[in-house]
Amino acid sequence: MRNDDLCWLGIAEASDLLAKAELSPVELTEAVCERIARLNGRLHAYLTVLPERALAAARTAERELAAGQRRGPLHGVPVAVKDLCDLRGTVTSCASTVRGGAVAQHDAAVVSRLEAAGAVIVGKTHLTEFAMATYHPTLPRPVNPWRADCDTGGSSSGSGVAVAAGLAAGAIGTDTGGSIRIPSSWCGVTGLKPTYGRVSRAGVFPLGHSLDHVGPMARSAADAALMLDAIAGFDVADPTTLRDAPRSCAAELTAGARGVRIGWDERFVCDGAPAAVADAVRAAVEALAALGAQVVEVTVPPVDEVVHAWPVLCAAEALAAHRETYPSRAAAYGPGFRSFLEFGASVSGADYARHHELRLNWVGRLQAVFQDADVLACPSTFMTAIPSGVIDADETFSPAIAPFLRFTAPFNFSGSPTLSMPCGFTPDGLPHSLQLVGRHGAEPLLCRVGHAYQQATDWHRRHPPL
Amino acid sequence: MRNDDLCWLGIAEASDLLAKAELSPVELTEAVCERIARLNGRLHAYLTVLPERALAAARTAERELAAGQRRGPLHGVPVAVKDLCDLRGTVTSCASTVRGGAVAQHDAAVVSRLEAAGAVIVGKTHLTEFAMATYHPTLPRPVNPWRADCDTGGSSSGSGVAVAAGLAAGAIGTDTGGSIRIPSSWCGVTGLKPTYGRVSRAGVFPLGHSLDHVGPMARSAADAALMLDAIAGFDVADPTTLRDAPRSCAAELTAGARGVRIGWDERFVCDGAPAAVADAVRAAVEALAALGAQVVEVTVPPVDEVVHAWPVLCAAEALAAHRETYPSRAAAYGPGFRSFLEFGASVSGADYARHHELRLNWVGRLQAVFQDADVLACPSTFMTAIPSGVIDADETFSPAIAPFLRFTAPFNFSGSPTLSMPCGFTPDGLPHSLQLVGRHGAEPLLCRVGHAYQQATDWHRRHPPL
Repeated sequence: MRNDDLCWLGIAEASDLLAKAELSPVELTEAVCERIARLNGRLHAYLTVLPERALAAARTAERELAAGQRRGPLHGVPVAVKDLCDLRGTVTSCASTVRGGAVAQHDAAVVSRLEAAGAVIVGKTHLTEFAMATYHPTLPRPVNPWRADCDTGGSSSGSGVAVAAGLAAGAIGTDTGGSIRIPSSWCGVTGLKPTYGRVSRAGVFPLGHSLDHVGPMARSAADAALMLDAIAGFDVADPTTLRDAPRSCAAELTAGARGVRIGWDERFVCDGAPAAVADAVRAAVEALAALGAQVVEVTVPPVDEVVHAWPVLCAAEALAAHRETYPSRAAAYGPGFRSFLEFGASVSGADYARHHELRLNWVGRLQAVFQDADVLACPSTFMTAIPSGVIDADETFSPAIAPFLRFTAPFNFSGSPTLSMPCGFTPDGLPHSLQLVGRHGAEPLLCRVGHAYQQATDWHRRHPPL
Repeated sequence: MRNDDLCWLGIAEASDLLAKAELSPVELTEAVCERIARLNGRLHAYLTVLPERALAAARTAERELAAGQRRGPLHGVPVAVKDLCDLRGTVTSCASTVRGGAVAQHDAAVVSRLEAAGAVIVGKTHLTEFAMATYHPTLPRPVNPWRADCDTGGSSSGSGVAVAAGLAAGAIGTDTGGSIRIPSSWCGVTGLKPTYGRVSRAGVFPLGHSLDHVGPMARSAADAALMLDAIAGFDVADPTTLRDAPRSCAAELTAGARGVRIGWDERFVCDGAPAAVADAVRAAVEALAALGAQVVEVTVPPVDEVVHAWPVLCAAEALAAHRETYPSRAAAYGPGFRSFLEFGASVSGADYARHHELRLNWVGRLQAVFQDADVLACPSTFMTAIPSGVIDADETFSPAIAPFLRFTAPFNFSGSPTLSMPCGFTPDGLPHSLQLVGRHGAEPLLCRVGHAYQQATDWHRRHPPL
């Protein structure tokens, strides 16, 4: 197999070949590192590439696999982690200059779990500064592999680009208001924001404590399922992690979509998205219906008011998380994130409380959807990738960002698991994205429905024209 | 039966007699109203007594019962509601002058449910101003029926006094940081703070939206169970109410304590309470063990830090709830509540966020207790009733109130159901109180364990020396 073909193997495919010794972890890791070396200067997916560390891990994996000590489906598979996650001995920059190049002393829980599963970490991916909306002015912007003049979406932009461009089979993202789903949508990959508390956040720099989620981004629901199975579970170092043992997503993957009740709210979708976006998602729901899913009408509680709670709650939580460096090191922040923290400083306790009430009430109302449906279908984002530079053009944060998050932030409020997958392309070659939202703990069902869709379609198999 | 004997009938006892037509709702209501007329001027349990309304309701109940149209166990039983709850056509004063005698246009959901169950509402009970810690200076203080020189506990002080003094068989309380449990403890009655969302708060003036609970206070776990069954359930007017149908507490009441795992944390109890309080609760747990419960050691996550989050979160939420009248009508508030709102105004969004993080982390850690135990046992309050006037002596609110709430406020953070019951008396004749805490939705188990305890003991049957 050519090096580039190796880089396009999915996790499940690579894993099969590795298990059968038809592929070596070293060969695979070398191919990925070579491709990164070739393309990262153009795409800026990674902030830090770790070829030597990765090759050492690949050699260990090769030895273990040869000795019949296979740890599981990620063993020997190259993956990436967002540079918000600590990896011992490397800098966690958070794509900022504020933390002054501090080297992590410990691994984030998600890193430990990936490595315990035998995954090979090839590097740390780029992101918007501290996982909000804008880039630090000293850093290059990641480039959308589908169209170089388009935005990648954020904040897990580097993870989205890396996976979309064949620079990793899977990558870790984080999602506070849409940061897994927006780059998954705009880069055309499959992103899974798990239930709040399903994946430990220990060692991952927070943006908003009550809103932060860690999850996988990959090129298929099947691959995201394998990654989630490896990283999910209780962690004493993150008290918000759920104590029940997570069900395996991989084990239920092939059960199909038959009989699953897919909730559809025409007004929720069409009020929030242009016709082309709504049409692409509607077509995906019809494809699921053709696979035996039952489409039911539901009413999503109105989001117009509650999305405005997102910047209020998140900025106050971010300010609390940054109290050691803001305002003391204010000048080291980029203007976008600095003004976000300034906005946070303008939020009073009563403002937080009032918006928290909106949140709790919306989350309560959302439960009605899941009485009638097993899964809610909607777009991941209200539009496809926008031109580069638009989000960064205004250097100051504006809470007017909120409506932009109407399909994503509400499910950070609720902590609902959601799966985003490509479901078509615009005439300009930009991906559309279907979002499936489930009840708490329903990741296996989401992966199962997503896998059924991807078995019947091939949007997720397309490669960008690099 | 003498009038006063009628007033000491429990809900279950009265209900039996009413069902068998051995007692008339009118006779019972007259007896209770007569006793209120005789004692309320001394005890100040009620702010508003509604004898004519109650008698009209009693006559209706009598007619319906005679016609075989019994609505359930509350039919014809006199109860009281805290004057934080709207009752159409009456003033909801919230024990303040701020709201200017506004007459409620609608019934609170809890009132509607009580009346739909046939309960006879005899009046509206006193409370600390807006359900915080202090009284409005224009109002008399409720008097502890066990010792007139002692505090009743708050905020549902009038409900506690009414039930303890035989001025109602049951009363509605609310609990944001302990406001059902503290007066239940100090007045020697049985109070049930249900799971967050189990009882609608529609039409109940909020103190802290994320912390407020509505629940019953009565003279036994069996009676509290009957009241909760009548008032629990989803309400579209309160989006935070739970959508699953509540299990009946009465149906499981007599299943006993055998095999129930009672969690006990010696350090949690003894660090927080003097020896006499701890001893009384320990004796109650030993009594449960003698009934077949299994006592298991558990570790409650440390509360010393998290209790300080309570005034921060609650004051910010209260300020948001009072934005129509504060600061515009600041002078109409009593000094204690006004300074609480002023404290709320000093809370920044980042303060709220930081303390909300403490809350979420503590709640996460608490789940470990309920992996090892079905019910956690601890005191309801860290001491028995304190002398009157101590809490009111300082006219300004201090966040140093927090440690006072160490056994109560953490279970507002978690939204856990808890049952408080008398479990002994001091040599001075003041009640001790056992608190049982359960998993979300475990009200039936709490009532069952509480009922088993009360079948084996008679602390809850003692009457104060009035």
